Amino acid sequence: MIVFGSTGSIGVNALKLAILKNLHISALACGGNIKLLNKQIERFKPEFVCIKEAKDRHLVKHKNVFVGQEGLERILELSSDTLLLNAIVGFAGLKSTLKAHKLNKKIALANKESLVVAGEFLKGANLIPVDSEHSALNALLKERQNVKKLYVCASGGAFFKLKTKDLKSVKPSDALKHPNWSMGSKITIDSATMANKLFEIIEAYHLFNIKEIDAFIEPKSLLHALCEFQNGATSAYFSKPDMKLAIAEAIFDTHEFEILPPLDFVKLSHLKFHKISLKKYSLFTLKNALLNNPNLGVIINAANEVMVEKFLKQKCEFLDISKGVFKTLDHFGEPKIRELEEVFEYDRKVREYCENFSFIV
Amino acid sequence: MIVFGSTGSIGVNALKLAILKNLHISALACGGNIKLLNKQIERFKPEFVCIKEAKDRHLVKHKNVFVGQEGLERILELSSDTLLLNAIVGFAGLKSTLKAHKLNKKIALANKESLVVAGEFLKGANLIPVDSEHSALNALLKERQNVKKLYVCASGGAFFKLKTKDLKSVKPSDALKHPNWSMGSKITIDSATMANKLFEIIEAYHLFNIKEIDAFIEPKSLLHALCEFQNGATSAYFSKPDMKLAIAEAIFDTHEFEILPPLDFVKLSHLKFHKISLKKYSLFTLKNALLNNPNLGVIINAANEVMVEKFLKQKCEFLDISKGVFKTLDHFGEPKIRELEEVFEYDRKVREYCENFSFIV
Repeated sequence: MIVFGSTGSIGVNALKLAILKNLHISALACGGNIKLLNKQIERFKPEFVCIKEAKDRHLVKHKNVFVGQEGLERILELSSDTLLLNAIVGFAGLKSTLKAHKLNKKIALANKESLVVAGEFLKGANLIPVDSEHSALNALLKERQNVKKLYVCASGGAFFKLKTKDLKSVKPSDALKHPNWSMGSKITIDSATMANKLFEIIEAYHLFNIKEIDAFIEPKSLLHALCEFQNGATSAYFSKPDMKLAIAEAIFDTHEFEILPPLDFVKLSHLKFHKISLKKYSLFTLKNALLNNPNLGVIINAANEVMVEKFLKQKCEFLDISKGVFKTLDHFGEPKIRELEEVFEYDRKVREYCENFSFIV
Repeated sequence: MIVFGSTGSIGVNALKLAILKNLHISALACGGNIKLLNKQIERFKPEFVCIKEAKDRHLVKHKNVFVGQEGLERILELSSDTLLLNAIVGFAGLKSTLKAHKLNKKIALANKESLVVAGEFLKGANLIPVDSEHSALNALLKERQNVKKLYVCASGGAFFKLKTKDLKSVKPSDALKHPNWSMGSKITIDSATMANKLFEIIEAYHLFNIKEIDAFIEPKSLLHALCEFQNGATSAYFSKPDMKLAIAEAIFDTHEFEILPPLDFVKLSHLKFHKISLKKYSLFTLKNALLNNPNLGVIINAANEVMVEKFLKQKCEFLDISKGVFKTLDHFGEPKIRELEEVFEYDRKVREYCENFSFIV
């Protein structure tokens, strides 16, 4: 890599990264910070060096010192490196961008002024923005790999604002009042118990083939999921809580028309994020067990379906849903499922078991 | 499209979308809501219909009514449609997913239980999740098109917490104290005046070839940019404010190692978003003019460079930076730039003009 502006904030950070990945540095250029430049020369042993003013030349500990804009352009010609990091400040950086473009080099562009003043003349250049905002936009539009962890967001369900102790007396009609989503009764209850999020985590595991998955609460249901990447960035997906969007994404091949009006971040003014309380949403304690043995899915699902049905028919209390699931898990232990047929067998056995134990209502 | 669970919340929404895009519906299946099913039959004229229980058969206004799980599977065989929306609730949806997979149909899967209980047996299936969270993850990982609008985020700079009237007396040393980013002096001042964001908008225009670009303030500098898509979804990119990430994205080809520790959304607890005050950040009023005539970039940039230099040397006040830019724009009008050489000419002329007008300090 050729680094123009090596002693500035961007240059210094880029050189830290070069060390990390053992990237060869063929040239360094800076303005007046000769002291730091000399340290960089010692560390990176570049073939070429350029400084701003001829008067400083004698201070530079290198045999091949160029000066000024002419020097920069000469280095671009001489170096066989195909990547220039242009971190020169201001209009002064333009000529180096133009020259590197002419030489078909890839340009990591921290000098935004090149585009501000002469964007029209840089069409077709191989530019990668170094600005964090444009780097972000690039990342959001390209296909991404190197996923480290996924997060699915939860609303917290109908009882998000209730205390754990208040859950004892809630009725089906209360549990069915979801604050954000208009959905069927089963999934609305699953949302209140967090069973839905537990299921979504195992769903994500099967869809994306990754076990690093977690969830947290965003009570407005505007943020739906996060992808955390190996490099430390996180991308996030927002929309109004209306299932039409996800359905449209699934059933149409193209997405060039409006399904929902977009979110206005300034109008929504703030977003809050909360940890999922394991005391309140006790079913969510099963997350790691389920990820470690996805076969538990059939047990948990069948028990949950039976218990939700009992709750909706007022045959048990709200907190009995999770109690029933845990009791069933204790009874069946860790299933080993090798054939599809066993899924149906387990489902049948679990239902039979669950239907027949009773809670005092 | 074949729709299983047509009278539920997902089914109803899917049919609304089908109308929007004139999607042919070859089959409808539901549980007990025969009244709504009959309306749907009248509207969509499907070839096949399936209901849960034989006793309701006489109520259905269709010649080709199937019943139960057997009926669903028979419809999957008979319909030449290659897309199934499976919105059946619970374990009851599994057999349809399995059958559709066997028939190589694409499955828009709202029945997450299929994966919860039998994910291992659906490997290789053409599944598109209908859950909003998984749809979000899909969207974040794939290459995206159909961008409607881009947003770059601003920190608000060193004076975000100050009132407009307090800006009169600020000193260079105050303006250089950026709350989040450690950067050079020029860009730190540009951050305080919002010139930096103005430049980033025109930078984004040149990079992404779109004029729908705006900005807002997220004071923690954890959110960097948003992409708003035609369909109403918005993807967002987060990271700690450290330039190493954007530099690494620009200079390395692979991104499989940690550059920064990831953000913990639960620990950061909330995010706030603010409109950019045009009274306080008056340079930002130039956004539309600049997008309409990107040639203004060279005038605004040169004037801004001179004025920032004057401010740093205490030759003018902070608010004179924008005043100087506006005065220069008034003087030069709308440049028409056809040759690259004119960029350099304008830059020189603007500097000459700006250097020579004086403000009373």
